[in-house]
Amino acid sequence: MADNITKKSQDVSSWYNDVVLAAKLAEHGPARGTIIIRPYGYAIWEGIQRYLDTKIKSFGVDNAYFPLFIPNSLLQKEKSHVEGFSPELAVVTHGGGEELAEPLVVRPTSETIMYDAYSRWISSYRDLPLKINQWNNVVRWEKRPYLFLRGTEFLWQEGHTAHATHDDAIDMAKKALDAYVDTYQNQLALFGYAGRKSESERFAGAAVTYTYEALMPDGKIVQSCTSHDLGQNFAKAFNIKFQDQNSENQYVWQTSWGLSTRSIGALILAHGDDNGLVLPPAVAPYQVVIVPIHGKDGDHEKIGQLTQRAFEVLETSGLRVKVDSTENSPGWKFNEADLQGIPLRIEIGMTEIESETVKIVIRWPETRDVHNFKISELALEVEKLLDTMQKDLLQAHKDWTLANTREVGTYDEFKEIMGTVRGFIKAYWCEDAGCEAKIKEETKATVRVLTFDEEVETEGKCVGCGNKASHRWLFGQSY
Amino acid sequence: MADNITKKSQDVSSWYNDVVLAAKLAEHGPARGTIIIRPYGYAIWEGIQRYLDTKIKSFGVDNAYFPLFIPNSLLQKEKSHVEGFSPELAVVTHGGGEELAEPLVVRPTSETIMYDAYSRWISSYRDLPLKINQWNNVVRWEKRPYLFLRGTEFLWQEGHTAHATHDDAIDMAKKALDAYVDTYQNQLALFGYAGRKSESERFAGAAVTYTYEALMPDGKIVQSCTSHDLGQNFAKAFNIKFQDQNSENQYVWQTSWGLSTRSIGALILAHGDDNGLVLPPAVAPYQVVIVPIHGKDGDHEKIGQLTQRAFEVLETSGLRVKVDSTENSPGWKFNEADLQGIPLRIEIGMTEIESETVKIVIRWPETRDVHNFKISELALEVEKLLDTMQKDLLQAHKDWTLANTREVGTYDEFKEIMGTVRGFIKAYWCEDAGCEAKIKEETKATVRVLTFDEEVETEGKCVGCGNKASHRWLFGQSY
Repeated sequence: MADNITKKSQDVSSWYNDVVLAAKLAEHGPARGTIIIRPYGYAIWEGIQRYLDTKIKSFGVDNAYFPLFIPNSLLQKEKSHVEGFSPELAVVTHGGGEELAEPLVVRPTSETIMYDAYSRWISSYRDLPLKINQWNNVVRWEKRPYLFLRGTEFLWQEGHTAHATHDDAIDMAKKALDAYVDTYQNQLALFGYAGRKSESERFAGAAVTYTYEALMPDGKIVQSCTSHDLGQNFAKAFNIKFQDQNSENQYVWQTSWGLSTRSIGALILAHGDDNGLVLPPAVAPYQVVIVPIHGKDGDHEKIGQLTQRAFEVLETSGLRVKVDSTENSPGWKFNEADLQGIPLRIEIGMTEIESETVKIVIRWPETRDVHNFKISELALEVEKLLDTMQKDLLQAHKDWTLANTREVGTYDEFKEIMGTVRGFIKAYWCEDAGCEAKIKEETKATVRVLTFDEEVETEGKCVGCGNKASHRWLFGQSY
Repeated sequence: MADNITKKSQDVSSWYNDVVLAAKLAEHGPARGTIIIRPYGYAIWEGIQRYLDTKIKSFGVDNAYFPLFIPNSLLQKEKSHVEGFSPELAVVTHGGGEELAEPLVVRPTSETIMYDAYSRWISSYRDLPLKINQWNNVVRWEKRPYLFLRGTEFLWQEGHTAHATHDDAIDMAKKALDAYVDTYQNQLALFGYAGRKSESERFAGAAVTYTYEALMPDGKIVQSCTSHDLGQNFAKAFNIKFQDQNSENQYVWQTSWGLSTRSIGALILAHGDDNGLVLPPAVAPYQVVIVPIHGKDGDHEKIGQLTQRAFEVLETSGLRVKVDSTENSPGWKFNEADLQGIPLRIEIGMTEIESETVKIVIRWPETRDVHNFKISELALEVEKLLDTMQKDLLQAHKDWTLANTREVGTYDEFKEIMGTVRGFIKAYWCEDAGCEAKIKEETKATVRVLTFDEEVETEGKCVGCGNKASHRWLFGQSY
């Protein structure tokens, strides 16, 4: 066990902070709430980018870049949008040594600056759909910063599309959500509940917000991404019209959707253990680390040769592999590999030279020897082990989430659970904002999501106020 | 010829602006000096990123991300650095609805915020070399904005390394420059002169600045990238020390180097013509456009089938190809393809169906038919044509640059050339800053670069003041 990190079982929050720092994923930047994403953390983000960028482009969405600075007047155009974001803005008042005539807002999101351009670019049905994505940085002032999970500046992608019909827009918003669910499940190995948000939890300016909510080990919930059906709210505020095939002018229907570096925070929280990170093979910067063990009487040359051969076999198979040839002791290297959550470790010492095999040690569910394999079988065996670990990690998170999703009928039960183990609670809710606010005040739980399979109307009594309710929502305490 | 763009031969600057807008590469953002990089322009940047990122990683440099906001106090630490950047800063004074106790500078470059972290991360020779790169956005207030070439915000990569010895640092700075020269020559097809800057043109805080200077059609010169040997200037300002193998404390030696979206501006300026863009195949978002020509009596099905077959043949070969199946006329599509600078156009109509061939039209040096090819030969022929165009474009720019590089002996000659055709002037210079300033005031020309092959000392008289000089420098008017 790593002795410089708090035990996860004792204090998840301290463990998280310790492991992020010790594994050199990130640290706090000098300006409050900012984050330095170190190479090991950034490599995870590059993995997420590669996967998601390909998916986004497969929808016919093109990447582009819009400015960081938004004139204040533009941001004011959509009323509920500016109300939502005003408390979080960073404002540039001086540039080039002079005070600016109009302050510039550092983008908290790019709807306003992009849709100002969309209103110039769209005039005919032939210009639709218009589908653009950006990979960039955004700034939202954060009073309670938490590495990766809440920050004044974070990295993300934001997709923004305009369509001729509402159906097309809804389809796009749901496709984007599907891409996120796929990324979370098949890359980050994180189970969650997909569905739509309540009115009060919607994005500022959206008609409907879709989300994927994932449970963390402390019983709290991360909103892992969002996809918005914007209706015609922004189209009307920014006058984005097109002439349809009957030469009639119509407002476009829009969507926006984003996934951020917060995903890395959820990944770390969900999978790690007392020894450090556990990274799913699909996004692990290194899937395998090879540790040559020379010992006192080791034949350096032979060990070096076998190490090199194992490295080449794995790299040629397209695996991400590194050799730890630093001056540190084997024990130190093992701990370091565990801390960094590298899925597999290969040890090569004199025993291996004699048996002409290599020893594989697996990181999860606990660090343990798997087997010795011949070099000729190595790539295939490693791929199998990685594949199994990837699937099992998701299954474990799913099983645990389901076990911590409780259906309750009474408010007393609700309060009891939220005051102890937390997790997800499934309950009828009347969809009244006042009732929602009361529940939040008394239990710290908010309405997280109405899953797609609960969209059909049924009949029940609201867990909060006892009034008539027609859907069972998921509640929980959010990050 | 495109009738919505100024002729390049008449006015390079108006042509440039027209073509950037008409080809939908970019447009001005709402805040002065900012730029909206549209999908077609951004796809060029993605091409440059793909190529350069692989090269950078091959040097053992890792990507990371540092914050956008730099506390003013950090920026003040290196004296000449802050002096150089002060007039260009954008400053955040308000955040989260409150006035900040300490203003935050929006990064103009990241030396100060990165080296503050380096001072914590480096303590032993084992921590060296430390090599980190960022792909990000930076802000430098610009009073005379020009799309891509000069902007308040631009995208770039900035590499920052720390080494145990000065030799290692110099080696790294030169390797980075080599990667840039490679990218410019083999991707953007731009010839230039590589070498070092004069003292007055050095990066604020650098010991030596290396550069690659490229000549543009109006006789002015673009500084296309820079790579800096920072010596120990920042190491001393930020107290970045390491314990060497003899347990002695030493300051590290550092480098920084960057290439920005300005490269796209140089690319456009250098290669286009009266019909629009000319894009080198290596970075063209589309290398081939296929235009089906149905005509009045065309067999739509057969034309569609041959179009699809040609598309598949080319795409399978790894080429970037699109079909223009919009409702526009063939003539309109041809003009559009020329405007967008797509290297090759393939036409498929009834003539092609009958002859079982496809017609290839090449964009450069002028738009003209090349030949009809059988589908079975298509991929190979297209690859050959693209390859030849890529090489010829570089050769043409090189020939033209060499023809516009003039060696002069007298100041009268110097003034005459700078007042008319401009271009590069090669001349002895005494390396005195006063003399340099006088030449600049009288001719608008600055000292651009001392090429590596002119580093050997010779003897001559300064073109500006007649004093003794030992090197022949290249002069020119800069963008």
